[in-house]
Amino acid sequence: MRAVDIIRAKRDGSALTHDQITWMVRGASDGSVPPYQLSAWLMAVWLRGMSPEETAWLTDAMVRSGVRVDLSGVPGVKVDKHSTGGVGDKTSLIIAPVVAALGVPVPMMSGRGLGHTGGTLDKLESIRGFRTRLTLDEYRQQVADLGCALIGQTDEVAPADRTLYALRDVTATVESLPLICASILSKKIAEGIDALVLDVKTGSGAFMVREDDARALADALVGLAERSGLRVAALLTQMDVPLGRMVGNALEVRECVEVLRGGGPADLVDLSVELAALMLWLGKGRVSMAESRDAVRGALADGTGLAMFRRIVERQGGDVGMIDDPATLPQAPVRADVLAPCAGYVARYDAGMVGRAAVQLGAGRAKAEDTVDPGVGVELLATPGDRVDAGMPIIRIHANSAADADLAREAVGAAISMSDMPPPPRPLILDRLGLARE
Amino acid sequence: MRAVDIIRAKRDGSALTHDQITWMVRGASDGSVPPYQLSAWLMAVWLRGMSPEETAWLTDAMVRSGVRVDLSGVPGVKVDKHSTGGVGDKTSLIIAPVVAALGVPVPMMSGRGLGHTGGTLDKLESIRGFRTRLTLDEYRQQVADLGCALIGQTDEVAPADRTLYALRDVTATVESLPLICASILSKKIAEGIDALVLDVKTGSGAFMVREDDARALADALVGLAERSGLRVAALLTQMDVPLGRMVGNALEVRECVEVLRGGGPADLVDLSVELAALMLWLGKGRVSMAESRDAVRGALADGTGLAMFRRIVERQGGDVGMIDDPATLPQAPVRADVLAPCAGYVARYDAGMVGRAAVQLGAGRAKAEDTVDPGVGVELLATPGDRVDAGMPIIRIHANSAADADLAREAVGAAISMSDMPPPPRPLILDRLGLARE
Repeated sequence: MRAVDIIRAKRDGSALTHDQITWMVRGASDGSVPPYQLSAWLMAVWLRGMSPEETAWLTDAMVRSGVRVDLSGVPGVKVDKHSTGGVGDKTSLIIAPVVAALGVPVPMMSGRGLGHTGGTLDKLESIRGFRTRLTLDEYRQQVADLGCALIGQTDEVAPADRTLYALRDVTATVESLPLICASILSKKIAEGIDALVLDVKTGSGAFMVREDDARALADALVGLAERSGLRVAALLTQMDVPLGRMVGNALEVRECVEVLRGGGPADLVDLSVELAALMLWLGKGRVSMAESRDAVRGALADGTGLAMFRRIVERQGGDVGMIDDPATLPQAPVRADVLAPCAGYVARYDAGMVGRAAVQLGAGRAKAEDTVDPGVGVELLATPGDRVDAGMPIIRIHANSAADADLAREAVGAAISMSDMPPPPRPLILDRLGLARE
Repeated sequence: MRAVDIIRAKRDGSALTHDQITWMVRGASDGSVPPYQLSAWLMAVWLRGMSPEETAWLTDAMVRSGVRVDLSGVPGVKVDKHSTGGVGDKTSLIIAPVVAALGVPVPMMSGRGLGHTGGTLDKLESIRGFRTRLTLDEYRQQVADLGCALIGQTDEVAPADRTLYALRDVTATVESLPLICASILSKKIAEGIDALVLDVKTGSGAFMVREDDARALADALVGLAERSGLRVAALLTQMDVPLGRMVGNALEVRECVEVLRGGGPADLVDLSVELAALMLWLGKGRVSMAESRDAVRGALADGTGLAMFRRIVERQGGDVGMIDDPATLPQAPVRADVLAPCAGYVARYDAGMVGRAAVQLGAGRAKAEDTVDPGVGVELLATPGDRVDAGMPIIRIHANSAADADLAREAVGAAISMSDMPPPPRPLILDRLGLARE
């Protein structure tokens, strides 16, 4: 087999064979196909697409480029959740412990912040001492012992995806449905899961700004997950305004603890309940969605989920004192408030603009090598729909310096929309796909 | 500027700016844009195309990646000819000396055999001692002294094209009109010419098998040459059967000497006269095409062209004895004849099949590192239209071994078409473009 023939076939719009795709991916892993041939192939894939069958083969080949964790020793259906990313999207820290506490194992490998969206690993690492880098043995053992581990992808997981992603990043071949889907699902399948809940977000704070694009991604992900043998449910959700009130790593951990203590903002609670209930329902098999939702709400109200989160933090070396007293989480030295520009209703905060302001404050990365600052971020004092007076503080900036705060105030100020009338209610869940459709 | 943005723009079908194209080509030359970004860009160009304006900028940037030879010290309009390649296509060796002998300087940089087609350098090097690698100074001086030099591209000429071509070869991005045109013309422009005659071939022995494709290439080349400031004339010519009777390096030199002595097969003579007349007409300015054709025929009949060829061979270190007595040119040890399979007319020899048989005999290369064998090749004893008896020798194989000869006999046998009726005459020149249209 020759790389040039495989590139030519895709260039001409042909479907590739199972053997051709497997051969290319193996070449990406072992270096036998050089980067310049991989990138020409990726561009041909970007422009010509891949059939669902080709995408499934690509996914499978990427899984088999590394270790597929064997969790068969852990009883039960192993379930994970994946979100396509948003601003203030912190549900993982809530639902993973809740679902595990309710008896469904959650082996969760997450990523870091990407662009203007936050990442679960960055949030967890704002808890002093929390280790997100476990070995696969530690990970497997923790899932067996506690029912949950919250870690980053190890080097053994889908190494071909890492090679290809690094090339895609610098060759303008990131935004391709088959490549995106194979990248996401190869890493999830390699974790050792049986079922998956997807949260596909759309709106200014999501990667897929247009709902059509997000729906196409959701359809493709669900189809691919089914083809790959996973039980899968998906929600298409609104990411036009930040989720919850907090954007920024330690701020978001604080808000998660609030929810795990039975409080927290309604949108975050509602979405967390729905996602966790889907996980529970996929994992248990014999409960209804209504029963699952009740169980999740119960675990939030009675502290079962919080207790599990404490155990996970403790097991992974984190300072549980910070969970018990979130005021001890890292805090930024400077606070500055953004005032309501006029009296009226808060209609909307543009999620993309808020996310980018948070990154500028240091909550995210401009380059992969940057480090994040755990304390900084944006806190929404008033949420969309709230009636406010002119000059009332509606947003609090948590910054490292007065200069940073000033810049962020300006950026966040531009994200605010006010209206004279109460804004119409926004549905958070736009659609249900896969098994969530029943 | 960032390569990823330029790749993305082309991926999305945008026209690139002058600065973007110049920046990418500079990056290809100096290594600041890595091969994996160049190849993704080349694939995007392959699939999205380039406007005539973009192609002209690309050509200009490739010329400026190296030296553009300054021949302003040589009086007169400098004219070259470029053929897109064929089987038995040996006109350069005839027309370069003839046109130079008639007073129009011909600075000619040629290539080696590619695929099943022959290359001028390989043919010249079958003359013992002939140096095709001159320095640019030697080249410039020889054009000034003799009016003609026949050399290979030096490293100083369009180095960016070399980098890009090497990548295209392994990433299935060769067959792109803008990339082909820019590659051909950047090298020609860098030679220092003012005018160019193009011989664009179509048929089984050409790279563009279909006439439509060849016509599109001819149109694109003419348009690009005009935009690049060259005076240009082009012929679209038939390459369905080999040109002349000889295919193979020393065999072709022998046939050229025959033509330069006033003999040779009609098709080769006719095409050589037409191409040389176009060069003369472009170079002289004040003569008609009819006068130019007469002058060329005269230079073939009276030995003026041959005398110039002798001087060039001598100047470039070649053994002129081999020109004076072509029987002393390298010869293959084994000869084997292919017999007419039946009585009738030779309708056609498939040029592609004959070309590939010659490569198999050693007249061309399977890999760039291979060396060619000067003596081997295929000699057509009967030409299309000839009436032959069953069992009469119609093709002679010149081989290095009986085994090679047997393989070639079989391959060449399959290239023969016979017919009961005289085949209809085939027009050699299918169309005239650019200034050749007047």
